[in-house]
Amino acid sequence: MAENNIDKKALYRISYGLYLVCSRKGEKLNGQVANAVMQVTADPISIVACLHKENLTTECILDSGVFSISILEQETPMTYIGNFGFKCGRDIDKFGNCEYRKGLTGAPLPVAHSLAVIEAELVKHTDIFTHVMFFGKVVDSKVLKDGTPLTYAHYHEVKKGKSPKNAPTSALNEVK
Amino acid sequence: MAENNIDKKALYRISYGLYLVCSRKGEKLNGQVANAVMQVTADPISIVACLHKENLTTECILDSGVFSISILEQETPMTYIGNFGFKCGRDIDKFGNCEYRKGLTGAPLPVAHSLAVIEAELVKHTDIFTHVMFFGKVVDSKVLKDGTPLTYAHYHEVKKGKSPKNAPTSALNEVK
Repeated sequence: MAENNIDKKALYRISYGLYLVCSRKGEKLNGQVANAVMQVTADPISIVACLHKENLTTECILDSGVFSISILEQETPMTYIGNFGFKCGRDIDKFGNCEYRKGLTGAPLPVAHSLAVIEAELVKHTDIFTHVMFFGKVVDSKVLKDGTPLTYAHYHEVKKGKSPKNAPTSALNEVK
Repeated sequence: MAENNIDKKALYRISYGLYLVCSRKGEKLNGQVANAVMQVTADPISIVACLHKENLTTECILDSGVFSISILEQETPMTYIGNFGFKCGRDIDKFGNCEYRKGLTGAPLPVAHSLAVIEAELVKHTDIFTHVMFFGKVVDSKVLKDGTPLTYAHYHEVKKGKSPKNAPTSALNEVK
């Protein structure tokens, strides 16, 4: 069927939060901003994250088999998001100027603007066109502070943020 | 690692919308409430929905290879959600008293409280513990009206809704 049946504005009504998905490859730590994160089962507790195939964090998760999710607070500054979202860990050390601790899995847990952190061990992964869906069994999670989670709607409508080209929702830039 | 490292309240900080995921099996139409829905790629546009293995909608999608997503508005009455969320299509016809149209794919599109509807053809599916993740290529989408999408946070905190036992996030009932 033709793609012109698709009104991209309809997709923009789907709700998301905004997260840092982090992992490691040997000693190298990396992380990125992602919106495509959710819990998928309750027993055992498992989560998914969907990342672009070309991203360094994808390479790290495939190598180490672990990843972490940091749930960003609504007040997260754009500069903090920009460090993780619009730069590549192949060019810079994203954790060079970022407060973090190492989790049980060895994945980095950025703490500065996180309401909660979750760690998962990779159960499996599968390709979907340009992206990879990672399925992780949760092995550790902590609430760091009270607050309102940053939503993707707030990021776009209030913070006037953009979606980078490798985001699942990058077409949103066109339709806003 | 032990499950007692997991604070379930951390998982509750993940953001979701609330959707009807619908499909068909022959002439039988069915649908259910789901929160585990998101867009995963932009080119082509694809979405995922994660449903419990035992649910009738899961059986329908596996049979017909198509599904639809209706994005619920914030004002959706609890009785409307209850019809789709807390009853089983094996016992009742969920579309008996529900305004809908048939989409391009033949999947039903409930319209009464939907901001937008999206139709997808199944690309693949994969099991994750108790659930099945469906990957669909979007073939049609329409905005039906302006409004604020119903979020899972609003459903729980303002509408005081519960999660049914087969929801990925069913443990949220315990920690609220």
